[in-house]
Amino acid sequence: MTATKYDVLGIGNAIVDVIAMTDEEFLVREGLAKGSMTLIDEARAEALYSLMGPAIEASGGSAANTLAGLGSLGGKVAFIGKVKADALGAVFRHDITAIGVDFPTPGASDGVATARCFILVTPDGERTMSTYLGACQGLNAGDIDEEAVKAAKVTYLEGYLWDPPAAKEAFRKAAAIAHGAGRQVALSLSDSFCVDRYRAEFLELIRTGEVDILFANDSELKSLYETGDIETALAAVANDAKLAAVTLGADGCVVIERGERVYAPAAPVDGSIVDKTGAGDLFAAGFLYGHVNGFGLKRSAELGALAAAEVISHVGARPQVELKALAAENGLV
Amino acid sequence: MTATKYDVLGIGNAIVDVIAMTDEEFLVREGLAKGSMTLIDEARAEALYSLMGPAIEASGGSAANTLAGLGSLGGKVAFIGKVKADALGAVFRHDITAIGVDFPTPGASDGVATARCFILVTPDGERTMSTYLGACQGLNAGDIDEEAVKAAKVTYLEGYLWDPPAAKEAFRKAAAIAHGAGRQVALSLSDSFCVDRYRAEFLELIRTGEVDILFANDSELKSLYETGDIETALAAVANDAKLAAVTLGADGCVVIERGERVYAPAAPVDGSIVDKTGAGDLFAAGFLYGHVNGFGLKRSAELGALAAAEVISHVGARPQVELKALAAENGLV
Repeated sequence: MTATKYDVLGIGNAIVDVIAMTDEEFLVREGLAKGSMTLIDEARAEALYSLMGPAIEASGGSAANTLAGLGSLGGKVAFIGKVKADALGAVFRHDITAIGVDFPTPGASDGVATARCFILVTPDGERTMSTYLGACQGLNAGDIDEEAVKAAKVTYLEGYLWDPPAAKEAFRKAAAIAHGAGRQVALSLSDSFCVDRYRAEFLELIRTGEVDILFANDSELKSLYETGDIETALAAVANDAKLAAVTLGADGCVVIERGERVYAPAAPVDGSIVDKTGAGDLFAAGFLYGHVNGFGLKRSAELGALAAAEVISHVGARPQVELKALAAENGLV
Repeated sequence: MTATKYDVLGIGNAIVDVIAMTDEEFLVREGLAKGSMTLIDEARAEALYSLMGPAIEASGGSAANTLAGLGSLGGKVAFIGKVKADALGAVFRHDITAIGVDFPTPGASDGVATARCFILVTPDGERTMSTYLGACQGLNAGDIDEEAVKAAKVTYLEGYLWDPPAAKEAFRKAAAIAHGAGRQVALSLSDSFCVDRYRAEFLELIRTGEVDILFANDSELKSLYETGDIETALAAVANDAKLAAVTLGADGCVVIERGERVYAPAAPVDGSIVDKTGAGDLFAAGFLYGHVNGFGLKRSAELGALAAAEVISHVGARPQVELKALAAENGLV
């Protein structure tokens, strides 16, 4: 077996978030389903930007946020994703490498711009996302570095990778390499609408064991099993998945492994909940850090809850404090 | 007299902030004087960016922040400043217009990039700034729209305009037009090091009455009068300035007009002080809104304190809530 170089290698859409505060009426007027992620084209991206309020820009992308969280915890991690070599691409590259993540994928020198996700945050902290995939559509199997995947304990993939057609092949290639090297594969379901688009394929990945660790929130899991009852969904995933970590919003999370269920409460938020973007991504970061370090289900879940609580206390989907220090203060590392 | 179209027209450096959390050691290692603003060239900007941690991007610029605050309060305002027509220039233009500010100055189609200010925020919320002026250096007297200045009750200028050489002429031209039209001119001293660079000229502007309203914080005022004693500085400015509004950090502010002194306490911060960037700019926004609406010194100062408290409760130098609604909740409008 190749020596371990990385705790986690993540593959996902490389996106810069454009985050603005808004009100419920704006979402209604623009026909945006609150809490969802909608794919948009370039013309719609320009139109939406011209209509929305003042914004801030912050590197995002679901798997990339998770890797940033792992980097902030002190994990050895790498990210594979596609930006263009433009101004926002430079921002994305700076931010992910500055937090300690290897980012070997070269930027595209031509073609469409670096991806942007317009995130509209309502006063309740809920976020509604419209994503222009741009350069992410160029990610393909050729971007998967076989040696890097072999050298990672866990290869982490986001469900959103199913949206750009070539990225799905990258996903499958990476999963095959990882399993061939005796490594684990983790999947985040990303979004309930994403699950709705690719339900059959996601279920197959889980049931065939192509995925070892599944991350989902309650609405994604209910979408996966087409039920409105979380208990029904949890029973189903307990049967299908080797290891599933399911976040339940204010009710914390539940981790299920071989029939064993472990609950952990939500961690207290410093101040008020400002912006829920990245909560699931950072939960996955904390949980995976615990997982690769042998912390056990309970402590891994608590670390996930702590990282999620930090990221929802401010605008933006990546940590604003060093999570390693925060985890130490809370006695979790 | 030209009919009033604007409450305030502001002229300043059009800058996008690149904001990162850091520690005291980084400032020491990079030779950065804590709390100051240092001008840097493009090579240093690239080097500093490569060394600093993950960041977020948010539109900034001292006078531009003040105008954004006035726009958020519901004031009729315009901004004159120079960006390049590049990606960050588009971000700046979007953000300032989306908050309700007219921004008639065209972007430069060639030349150096839109200005960036690297803002390093230490755990105490203090910010240390390194500014690459870029396209701001192209602002000149030709950018001053005479009719717009004549149509503004107050023309607001930042001391930082003294840094790019051509901008000083724009400043003087705008002040002359404003006074010729019977309007008022306000000046913000910007930074104690900026005062140190241009002390004699700033004192002359104040003493000759070219400036009607002076904004300063305690360290800027002490730098202006080369004293370590705030009382000495306040006595001096009471003698020199028609109207001075001086912020005193946690001690609130004092407004001095014709020998009369009015104090207002700092407004309580929602949560903890996260990032002091923009505190003085937003104080000026609240005070000017009160001033042009005849609220009197005390209520104007309280409105300034309220706007400042909002902006230091989060990362970034512009309001994240509608200040008009916040002021109404606090009984100030």
